[in-house]
Amino acid sequence: MSKTLNIAIAGLGTVGAAAAKLLQDNAELLRRRCGAQLQVVAVSARSKGKDRGVSLGAVKWVDDARALADLPDVDLVVELIGGSEGVAKELVERAIANGKHVVTANKALIAHHGIALAALAEKHDVMLAFEAAVAGGIPIIDTLRHGLSANAFHIVAGILNGTCNYILTTMQKQGRAFEDVLKEAQDLGYAEADPSFDVDGIDTAHKLAILTSLAYGTPVDIDSIQIEGIRHITDLDMRYIAELGYTVKLLGIAQKNQEGILQRVHPALVPKHAPIGVIDGAFNAIHVEGDAVGRVLLEGRGAGGGPTASSVVADIVQVARGVRYPAFTMPVSEIKALPQAQMSNHVSSYYIRLAVKDQPGVLANITAIFAEQAISVRSIIQHTHDPLAPAQIVITTHDTRESAMRNALQQFASLTSVVETPNMIRIEKL
Amino acid sequence: MSKTLNIAIAGLGTVGAAAAKLLQDNAELLRRRCGAQLQVVAVSARSKGKDRGVSLGAVKWVDDARALADLPDVDLVVELIGGSEGVAKELVERAIANGKHVVTANKALIAHHGIALAALAEKHDVMLAFEAAVAGGIPIIDTLRHGLSANAFHIVAGILNGTCNYILTTMQKQGRAFEDVLKEAQDLGYAEADPSFDVDGIDTAHKLAILTSLAYGTPVDIDSIQIEGIRHITDLDMRYIAELGYTVKLLGIAQKNQEGILQRVHPALVPKHAPIGVIDGAFNAIHVEGDAVGRVLLEGRGAGGGPTASSVVADIVQVARGVRYPAFTMPVSEIKALPQAQMSNHVSSYYIRLAVKDQPGVLANITAIFAEQAISVRSIIQHTHDPLAPAQIVITTHDTRESAMRNALQQFASLTSVVETPNMIRIEKL
Repeated sequence: MSKTLNIAIAGLGTVGAAAAKLLQDNAELLRRRCGAQLQVVAVSARSKGKDRGVSLGAVKWVDDARALADLPDVDLVVELIGGSEGVAKELVERAIANGKHVVTANKALIAHHGIALAALAEKHDVMLAFEAAVAGGIPIIDTLRHGLSANAFHIVAGILNGTCNYILTTMQKQGRAFEDVLKEAQDLGYAEADPSFDVDGIDTAHKLAILTSLAYGTPVDIDSIQIEGIRHITDLDMRYIAELGYTVKLLGIAQKNQEGILQRVHPALVPKHAPIGVIDGAFNAIHVEGDAVGRVLLEGRGAGGGPTASSVVADIVQVARGVRYPAFTMPVSEIKALPQAQMSNHVSSYYIRLAVKDQPGVLANITAIFAEQAISVRSIIQHTHDPLAPAQIVITTHDTRESAMRNALQQFASLTSVVETPNMIRIEKL
Repeated sequence: MSKTLNIAIAGLGTVGAAAAKLLQDNAELLRRRCGAQLQVVAVSARSKGKDRGVSLGAVKWVDDARALADLPDVDLVVELIGGSEGVAKELVERAIANGKHVVTANKALIAHHGIALAALAEKHDVMLAFEAAVAGGIPIIDTLRHGLSANAFHIVAGILNGTCNYILTTMQKQGRAFEDVLKEAQDLGYAEADPSFDVDGIDTAHKLAILTSLAYGTPVDIDSIQIEGIRHITDLDMRYIAELGYTVKLLGIAQKNQEGILQRVHPALVPKHAPIGVIDGAFNAIHVEGDAVGRVLLEGRGAGGGPTASSVVADIVQVARGVRYPAFTMPVSEIKALPQAQMSNHVSSYYIRLAVKDQPGVLANITAIFAEQAISVRSIIQHTHDPLAPAQIVITTHDTRESAMRNALQQFASLTSVVETPNMIRIEKL
């Protein structure tokens, strides 16, 4: 006697197959939870014959995924094709225009076209849901939208890319170099052949842009994110960072200050045994601070079939329950741009490593530059492992304006005693 | 032009005042997020004159909280009186019967009467929401209901009582005795004059019973929970536990195995630097394992005005948005009891401490008992700090059935060489 929600899935890769299987395996549990039969009635995928561990015999197959948007008996389209343009975008637009709900895991699509698609979904009175687009199985979008909805947010900061976290964790635990671990990750299939999307921070920026919009009620603005990847972190840095009691994570951070919103992606030192410091390997985590709730941390698997399917199906369940909300929590008419805070005004403490000639006066030159920039030094440690190699000077600072630190770094680089590009990593208090 | 949701608050203690203030401070943000003005129109509290840091001048005051249920212009009643019976229960029942939505932070009420109240709310087509009843500001109920709704859950395990976590953390960090830290916590107002509700695990059991019902679609069943508090943990235990690389947490755990559902509350050893091991002080955390998502951990403040108000207001926001769901996710008609798994069949590894006379043959007697019970020992460490005091034998085991361990403990206790009641703490793999 219960209702049925008819679902079409576009893309039967790891996530699509896992979602279809989850809908089958937990069908009775899901029916009890949402009061509807969740029925896959149509799919589109490259190879029909492939064994995906799920029986899709009675299901309609279409070659062009966009045709799923036109099937009259489909209530909801799951878009798992990927990419910000092309078929994925056309399918989503057409499904919405045809009055079908859309669930997607496509972060690039939402980061680039999320607000326009949200407006379209409002116009056609359907749900556009994308829990799976950020942090895989961690329900951070639902948490910002519902569970923490009472709060004005001070900061949202996340480990949002499992590939980077795996590389950084492995570098630290095994004392190995970035290139070496990256190559291994590529061989194991954890990293792409072209790793730049992950290790240069672009993927993290996509996800951050979505979280920022949800947390602050602003348009998705990927272009104003300050992005820095993890390629410059060396095994030497890892050793010194550990000695200081820290570990390093690639973070996506959105913060509101008096100036406005600052969005940044960069590696950061966090205390080794802090809740965010112990998030290892391919796990993701998001640290949120709200004015009422204080700090909340969510942790879980940020990628993979099961975790991502968990979020895809959770969105389907909400649709089946009849829950309706605007895609970015507020109606598009309520979304307002806020001024952009300048990275140069950002205040942080810093880790700096300088490779120097081991000769008298070097430390005096360095400390003179800190004095000139009014930067308060917290610690200086000089490491001389090998008389033939440069000495390594490791400095941590107290809170300092980014512009002052940038000036100091420029001046360090111009010292003849400094023999490599100075390495700087920010220290986050999370 | 936007809608208004008229709210009555019963109880203006720490949480009530914080909720009223949050509704005022974030009024415009909340309006954008939920499309309605959230307006406190009536309150009931003991002292009208008291300064609560929030302006309630234009609000109707009633002496008897139950009268709030009868005010015709009230859409939603917030119950913050507490207690499983009496005024709180009558208010909630009357409000629901009068067609008003109810939001409550009252864990005892929900643990004892949750399903009956849920049935009443269904009958009158109103929301009964209680995010604040479990783990304060952590949106674990919303997460089980929405964000992780696709999953069949293997385990839900939480640090659900901040008082116990504060005591255990302080004992471990400062090497102090239970009674000593408890007294300090009482002096600081972190623990009640009668601490048994917290330290004997009752409060944790209330919260666990609610989570179990939500996770497994079963009736709230507080009576079948195996409950053990933290009074028996000594500073000696803390020292040995740390040496083994563990820390100790009071956990509420619900687990489904072939036999059925097992609910238990007891202290447990967890790895010191594991995500659940680093949850310190008054923080709460919940570890969830789902068949699709794998493990997810949520962490945040489990008590206090702000965090609890965050959850109360989040529930109000959902009501204002028009989101509707059964109180325990499924309609009451779908909630089904599952067989109760027996604690005696539970398999765990164990930490045991035996205070013994330092004489020949003791270890042989002990290991003979393990052999007889077919318990596989992982490590035995004998500590002899003081020649005049008993020697302390610290044992950890591999996986063992609880009944075998119980037999062994009984036999240890009957040995003349064992001079104190053997201390046993379970080791959890989280």
